[in-house]
Amino acid sequence: MIIQLESQVDEGQKKDIINKINELKYKTTEVKTQKGDYLVGIGKKDFDIRKIGNLPGIADIHIVSDDYKLVSRKWKVKPTAIDLGDGVVIEEGSMAIMAGPCSIEGEEQIEKTIEHLVENGVRIMRGGVYKPRSSPYSFRGMGIDGLKLWYDAARKAGIKIITEVMQVSQIGEMYDYIDIYQVGARNTQNFNLLDELGRVDKPVMIKRGISGTIDELLYSAEYVFSAGNENLLLCERGIRTYEKATRNTMDINAISILKEKTHLPVIADPSHGIGIRDHVDPVALASVMAGADGVIFETHEKPEEAFSDGQQTLDFSESSRLIEKIRKVHDLRESL
Amino acid sequence: MIIQLESQVDEGQKKDIINKINELKYKTTEVKTQKGDYLVGIGKKDFDIRKIGNLPGIADIHIVSDDYKLVSRKWKVKPTAIDLGDGVVIEEGSMAIMAGPCSIEGEEQIEKTIEHLVENGVRIMRGGVYKPRSSPYSFRGMGIDGLKLWYDAARKAGIKIITEVMQVSQIGEMYDYIDIYQVGARNTQNFNLLDELGRVDKPVMIKRGISGTIDELLYSAEYVFSAGNENLLLCERGIRTYEKATRNTMDINAISILKEKTHLPVIADPSHGIGIRDHVDPVALASVMAGADGVIFETHEKPEEAFSDGQQTLDFSESSRLIEKIRKVHDLRESL
Amino acid sequence: MIIQLESQVDEGQKKDIINKINELKYKTTEVKTQKGDYLVGIGKKDFDIRKIGNLPGIADIHIVSDDYKLVSRKWKVKPTAIDLGDGVVIEEGSMAIMAGPCSIEGEEQIEKTIEHLVENGVRIMRGGVYKPRSSPYSFRGMGIDGLKLWYDAARKAGIKIITEVMQVSQIGEMYDYIDIYQVGARNTQNFNLLDELGRVDKPVMIKRGISGTIDELLYSAEYVFSAGNENLLLCERGIRTYEKATRNTMDINAISILKEKTHLPVIADPSHGIGIRDHVDPVALASVMAGADGVIFETHEKPEEAFSDGQQTLDFSESSRLIEKIRKVHDLRESL
Amino acid sequence: MIIQLESQVDEGQKKDIINKINELKYKTTEVKTQKGDYLVGIGKKDFDIRKIGNLPGIADIHIVSDDYKLVSRKWKVKPTAIDLGDGVVIEEGSMAIMAGPCSIEGEEQIEKTIEHLVENGVRIMRGGVYKPRSSPYSFRGMGIDGLKLWYDAARKAGIKIITEVMQVSQIGEMYDYIDIYQVGARNTQNFNLLDELGRVDKPVMIKRGISGTIDELLYSAEYVFSAGNENLLLCERGIRTYEKATRNTMDINAISILKEKTHLPVIADPSHGIGIRDHVDPVALASVMAGADGVIFETHEKPEEAFSDGQQTLDFSESSRLIEKIRKVHDLRESL
Repeated sequence: MIIQLESQVDEGQKKDIINKINELKYKTTEVKTQKGDYLVGIGKKDFDIRKIGNLPGIADIHIVSDDYKLVSRKWKVKPTAIDLGDGVVIEEGSMAIMAGPCSIEGEEQIEKTIEHLVENGVRIMRGGVYKPRSSPYSFRGMGIDGLKLWYDAARKAGIKIITEVMQVSQIGEMYDYIDIYQVGARNTQNFNLLDELGRVDKPVMIKRGISGTIDELLYSAEYVFSAGNENLLLCERGIRTYEKATRNTMDINAISILKEKTHLPVIADPSHGIGIRDHVDPVALASVMAGADGVIFETHEKPEEAFSDGQQTLDFSESSRLIEKIRKVHDLRESL
Repeated sequence: MIIQLESQVDEGQKKDIINKINELKYKTTEVKTQKGDYLVGIGKKDFDIRKIGNLPGIADIHIVSDDYKLVSRKWKVKPTAIDLGDGVVIEEGSMAIMAGPCSIEGEEQIEKTIEHLVENGVRIMRGGVYKPRSSPYSFRGMGIDGLKLWYDAARKAGIKIITEVMQVSQIGEMYDYIDIYQVGARNTQNFNLLDELGRVDKPVMIKRGISGTIDELLYSAEYVFSAGNENLLLCERGIRTYEKATRNTMDINAISILKEKTHLPVIADPSHGIGIRDHVDPVALASVMAGADGVIFETHEKPEEAFSDGQQTLDFSESSRLIEKIRKVHDLRESL
Repeated sequence: MIIQLESQVDEGQKKDIINKINELKYKTTEVKTQKGDYLVGIGKKDFDIRKIGNLPGIADIHIVSDDYKLVSRKWKVKPTAIDLGDGVVIEEGSMAIMAGPCSIEGEEQIEKTIEHLVENGVRIMRGGVYKPRSSPYSFRGMGIDGLKLWYDAARKAGIKIITEVMQVSQIGEMYDYIDIYQVGARNTQNFNLLDELGRVDKPVMIKRGISGTIDELLYSAEYVFSAGNENLLLCERGIRTYEKATRNTMDINAISILKEKTHLPVIADPSHGIGIRDHVDPVALASVMAGADGVIFETHEKPEEAFSDGQQTLDFSESSRLIEKIRKVHDLRESL
Repeated sequence: MIIQLESQVDEGQKKDIINKINELKYKTTEVKTQKGDYLVGIGKKDFDIRKIGNLPGIADIHIVSDDYKLVSRKWKVKPTAIDLGDGVVIEEGSMAIMAGPCSIEGEEQIEKTIEHLVENGVRIMRGGVYKPRSSPYSFRGMGIDGLKLWYDAARKAGIKIITEVMQVSQIGEMYDYIDIYQVGARNTQNFNLLDELGRVDKPVMIKRGISGTIDELLYSAEYVFSAGNENLLLCERGIRTYEKATRNTMDINAISILKEKTHLPVIADPSHGIGIRDHVDPVALASVMAGADGVIFETHEKPEEAFSDGQQTLDFSESSRLIEKIRKVHDLRESL
């Protein structure tokens, strides 16, 4: 059960409502986000809504049968839109394109990438400054200094920044320089990180775990939302299966299922999804046709010289062609 | 190594060529199909092609580095086209649509389905008369009598038939009444069945195994081809993974990979791929965008009354809409 | 529901019973095996057993809540014992050891293996004469001639034979020369083969599918049993997962689960289960401790020269040591 | 390459060695642990060891062909032993038993559990005070206060404590009250947490990721070791597969493989591995037979009332019986 509170609800009213719900043997969690004030009630299934419906302070009550509540599509009339400012909005029906290198490598690379994005009308740049790597001996990213360099160049060009946050202490450190925090596939169930990201007011994109279920992804989003941040995006980036012809198995089904289950925007990552440069295009376009609200992919001026993920990174001319195709496919989808 | 023999090659020349190849420590397999006469040589990697290239009877020699040979795209200039007669051709660049019920249930159902297909310009009907079922107590299909009923109705309407063959003894029995033999996901590695299907002159569509790799699917096709039948189609129908929100995990990546690796047409089965009616559309359209040469899906006048697979079967109006969308998406794909 | 009929039941009584069950909206399947006469009823859950319990001809009625019936442990007081004659019995509490090469290669190999088995008190020899191979160009076994050679040598030594049957036509052909038909992992859901194996009176060991569920394995056994053959064994041989450090992932859990769910003997195949010679021992011993009623493993005088599976095959001294250890571990298990 | 430095090496010598290695195009990482001073060199494969072998300050040089280095068995003569003090040592050849509830719930529960452990001669108690939960609305553990209660009771009884650490800020907070930090399956690739655990001097047990590979587990251990802490244990706790008859699929193979690949102790967690109370015993005993150096399992006075994981938790009499059996099976294993 989700109870939307009126914007002018006072603490006394809130307390009365909570008491009433607890009497019904429901456990309540108070949630206060950028957009609203909620009470989430968890308890037995059968429940007579009339017992609390007329209490002062309540704007609306939603019975949500899913185990996750706030991220469920069942209660929210309008899908969530993520507004990054300057006219950059990620929402159902639009097509958000996020592109850039796997790792931020230096000033020249940043500038060339930004130039490429601007030429193609792309407003959001991806790139890693903190890199999760299986081996402790691999390149782990330029860190906060790289992010600052990137921020300076991006701001001038009107480009928004999405980049991965790996631990709680980085949240504050990165805050001034990013537009979207990305939670990587290895941290999808790093619940402390999710909790803390619920306490900031910038959007968070959560990638599906390496072998995470769709439900687990929704629960992870529920963590952030219930801790106070409802500016959330979900990202399908391929799952681990027995098949080794591809790096991961892009789960196109998950895009369609997520669009039904949640009001949050769903982004597709074909670069990690299949992990092979020549196949990024078909997987990206398939993802758009399956209903994705955006695509995030890796591009680099010289993929063969990239510090990481070169094998799945497009060069700029491939990237330009893909962007054009994504837009055409999206147009068709919206017209069907 | 694949050696294409000249059409007028005589047995003496053939023997000379085989001897020569065997001298080079290559094992040879003779392959005679509807379309040509080949020798497949399996042996060590390094090989001087000039040592046999000028022998009489040889039309061409292809070195194929893949472990499968005849189904590899590396040697065949023109992708395989499957001609079913009456203008029904499945080939790269076209879009073959195959639709129909999970199980053939009776005359009325057959006729209503055919009527629906004709109205929508669909030329190939799917349906099962031999049904592989996990439980021995489930409905196992109408068998050969159902097939004959179906054949009579389909022939009148100019509709081609694709249906599953489960065992060697059915191959001959079904021969006069079908246009494409389908090998189901549970029989992808039923090597005796594949061998025998290599000895008939009708097309065979092989579904990927329930947890078969892409390479295993190609090897299974190699079985049929090397036994003499090169009229082959491959079908992605979802794989088994840990994710249980969907019946299977449609592997969109496999479509793109198969299109690169083989000259055989690749068909997508979104009905089994995701297994949920409301999600068949996006998965079908995504598959087309990923490069599929055709789509096979389940439709029934009243899905809720279908003998099997009702939960993933479209009704006729859903089917009509999907067919129209598939064509539009295919048109766009070809124009990109 | 399983109805055990009295041994002297007559056709009229049987018909009366079937009519009565059908009146209760249960579908009946008649099953006549080597050991008994049964009716399997499939229908709605709630059912008053008194309505049929007193009909003449009925020995006993069992309500089985599992979807599979005849192979369930819930109705059968005594676990199934497989008696191969000459004192060779596979049953709960005993430890059946089956060893031998992957492929039967020739007379000398057969004799050396038999000698090794006799020395170690092993009574059952494994070996393939029909080999399922991914590639059509690989060695596919010596066929029926190899089996006859093997049979002659084995009979003299009092050794029983287990070998894989791949298709219906081989069942009769092999009948005189084998003691247990083995259904391989690629044929676990080859339902026609299972049906036919239900019509012979020799034991059948069914391997779990490459990515088969435990329930699917039980259903496959239900096929054979319901077609008339209750001399069945099940075999865990590793499943396909994302982990590639081992050939397969031996599912030790399945052994314990199967022992709870079914009255059939459960055999462990550590050779295929892990697929690496040095690790066959620990996996074999773990399987015994998990409750296996037998172990089947690959051994060859010179594994490095074996026609197939050499990398997971033990030499004779390794085999002797393993046999000794298996017996000690089994003794301990029985004493706990 | 691992270079063990002499204990009295001075900074000048160290610098010379590093320079020399870097000249050979090897990247060096300095590692200083509780037990030694190392340089890890990562670079091209071919290397003439004589070029640096005689430099002052070098005790030994090991060429390790694995991609992980410090945790590899290839260089360390003696397997790692974890000494918890008071005679509690976890090492190859011994059998460490760790038991206790899923969650620490309160004083009475702690005391009853300790009493049970003392009676059975178990020296290490498990229990969670920070609980990773899929849903934000589930019980998340008693936190540091629960840990302090536990510590007081455990210290009196001579019982050692292993408990999960979920984030960097907890490391210091928990330090005084624990004997082994446990890294849970959802944090196996939380690289920041691993890095920080490399900077403390208490043992760390890393659980395999939910669908982590064996190699990824070893890399995660390499993170901790290379950051300075070589008191490490690894834990197999079941992986995620398609099979749903069990909670996870305990990967018995991994125990055997890990024992070959690393010098670190390997612990088995049958409770999570199979996730069903009645099957914990066989999986535990199988794990011991496969080579585990210890077993960690869940026990509770009244499993049906446990705050979490009751379905896989043994009651005390089941626990006592299992402990006795584990010891007998271990004795047999050591005698084989």
